Amino acid sequence: MTQYFTEDGSAEVVNARMGSGINPRLKAVMDSLVRHLHAFAKDVDLRQEEWDIAIDFLTKTGQICSDERQEYILLSDVLGFSMLVDAINNRRPAGATENTVFGPFHVADAPIREMGDDICLDGKGERCLFEGKVVDRHGEPIEGACVDVWSDNADGFYDVQQPDIQPKWNNRGRFITGKDGAYKFYGIKPVSYPIPDDGPVGKMLGLMGRHPYRPAHMHYLVTAPGFQKIVTHTFVGDDKYITDDAVFGVKETLIAPFEHVQEDDTIWRSPFDFVMVPVSE
Amino acid sequence: MTQYFTEDGSAEVVNARMGSGINPRLKAVMDSLVRHLHAFAKDVDLRQEEWDIAIDFLTKTGQICSDERQEYILLSDVLGFSMLVDAINNRRPAGATENTVFGPFHVADAPIREMGDDICLDGKGERCLFEGKVVDRHGEPIEGACVDVWSDNADGFYDVQQPDIQPKWNNRGRFITGKDGAYKFYGIKPVSYPIPDDGPVGKMLGLMGRHPYRPAHMHYLVTAPGFQKIVTHTFVGDDKYITDDAVFGVKETLIAPFEHVQEDDTIWRSPFDFVMVPVSE
Ligand SMILES: [Fe+2]
Ligand SMILES: [Fe+2]
Repeated sequence: MTQYFTEDGSAEVVNARMGSGINPRLKAVMDSLVRHLHAFAKDVDLRQEEWDIAIDFLTKTGQICSDERQEYILLSDVLGFSMLVDAINNRRPAGATENTVFGPFHVADAPIREMGDDICLDGKGERCLFEGKVVDRHGEPIEGACVDVWSDNADGFYDVQQPDIQPKWNNRGRFITGKDGAYKFYGIKPVSYPIPDDGPVGKMLGLMGRHPYRPAHMHYLVTAPGFQKIVTHTFVGDDKYITDDAVFGVKETLIAPFEHVQEDDTIWRSPFDFVMVPVSE
Repeated sequence: MTQYFTEDGSAEVVNARMGSGINPRLKAVMDSLVRHLHAFAKDVDLRQEEWDIAIDFLTKTGQICSDERQEYILLSDVLGFSMLVDAINNRRPAGATENTVFGPFHVADAPIREMGDDICLDGKGERCLFEGKVVDRHGEPIEGACVDVWSDNADGFYDVQQPDIQPKWNNRGRFITGKDGAYKFYGIKPVSYPIPDDGPVGKMLGLMGRHPYRPAHMHYLVTAPGFQKIVTHTFVGDDKYITDDAVFGVKETLIAPFEHVQEDDTIWRSPFDFVMVPVSE
C-alpha cells in the first residue's frame, strides 16, 4: 500500500500514521472515528461548501460556550448522542431504574432537607407531592440513599438560569433516606421548557424542522453506598412533548403517575420508586 | 416502532424527528452524520469519561480560533478529512494536475509580477528557478492563466505568520501567462515546517504519536477562464517528511524535480507544468 493519500484508502492512510507506542484505547477510538467520519463524507459526497459550513458551525459552537453555557453538550444532546453514550454506559438488568441524560442544570451540594419539606421556595406553580422508596431489586429498602432533586420553576427556568432572582436553591434539594428507604417532598408539577435555542444548535434545530422543547420532568440523582448511581428524570406523561423530547430523554419506564389530588393546596401527587443495582453487578 | 429512545434504534429515532418540509440535502447529510456518529459510539463502546474529554476538546478547539487561527480546519487537515473532501470535489481525468489542500496561508490579491521576477524579497534561502507551462490536456498553451504562488521563507514561516517582519508579500506573487502559456519566477527552495501545534490539535497529534511537520512545498492556485481552478502544491521529493505529511497533502504526481544548478546565485531549478481541465468536463 502506498503511504500517499488516496480517495479510496483515505481512512487507512490516516490511521496507519498513528504511532506504535501510544495508548491502545486512544488508538482504537481514533481509528474508528476516522473511519466513520470518512465513510460519512463518502456516503453523502460531501461538497466543499458544506465543509465550509461545518467548519463555521463547529467554530461558533465552541465560541459561544462559557461558564454558563455548554453548546457542545447541547449539540450532543439534540443528536441523541448523549442518550446513546448514557445507554452504553448504564446497561441495567430489567426492573432496575433506567438512566437518562444528566442535563446542564444540576448544582452540587444543594441543601439537605427533611422528609416532607417543600423545595418550591417562590410559591409559584401547581403544588405536587413526590414520594416513593429507594429499594434494591429484591424490594429491600436502602437506608442512607441520597435523593438529589431539581426541576424548573413555573416559568420553565432553572434557578441557575435566573441567578438574579431569589430565593437561591429554588426547586432543589437533597433528601437522605432512613431505614424504610422512603423519600417524600413537595415541589411543583414541572412544566415543559425549551433548551437554549438562540445559538448555533438552535439554528440547526430550526433548519432540521425540529422544536427545542423538552417534556416536563423532575430530575433525580440517586446515590447510595455500594450501588450504581442513578441519573434520571421522571416525566409527566400527558405533556404535549412526551413523544417528542428535543434531547430524546424519555423512556417509557420513566413516565411517572401525576395523580390529581386536593389536600390543602396540594394539587398533584407523583409516586415513584427507585430500584438500584449493586456496583458489583 | 416506538418513538422513544432505544440503544439499538438510536440513530433511527433521532433521524425520524426531522421535519418533512426541510431542505432535502440537509436532511440527507444530517441523516448520514447521525448514523455514522452513533455507529462510532457503538463500535468503540464509548465511555462516559471519553465523552467528557471529547466535549472539552471540541470546546477548546473552537475557543482557540481567532481571525489569525482556525483550529477546526487544522483538525480536519490532520484527520485527512480536508484531503478527502478535496478529492471528492475535484475528481479529474488522468493527466490533469491534481489538487491538494488549500491551507490557511493564502492571501488574495498578491502583487502581479513580471515573468522572471523574484518573489523572495528578504534574500534568505536557497534561490530556485520555478518554470513551466499552463496547458490543456492536449498540451495546448493557455493564455491569460493566473499562476498565484506562495511559500514559506527560509525559516519555515509564511509572511502572514510574521506580520511585524518586512517586507510585505515576501515569497508571494501572481503571474499571468502570455500566448505561450509559460510561467517563470525565482523564489527559494521551500523548507519543511510544523503546523501550529501549541493548541488542542497539536496535543491530540502528540497523543496519537504523530509529528506536526509538512514536507517542503510551493503553493499554487492556477486559474484561467473556462477551466477548473487548480489548488495544489509542488513538493520537494527528497524532503524527510515526504511520505509523512501531517495533513496528508502529498500525491505522487505533485512531487516536482528540484534540480541542482549553478548559475549566478541560483542553486535550484524546479520545472512543473499545470494541466487544466475545462469547466464543462
Ligand atoms: Fe431539565
Ligand atoms: Fe504550506
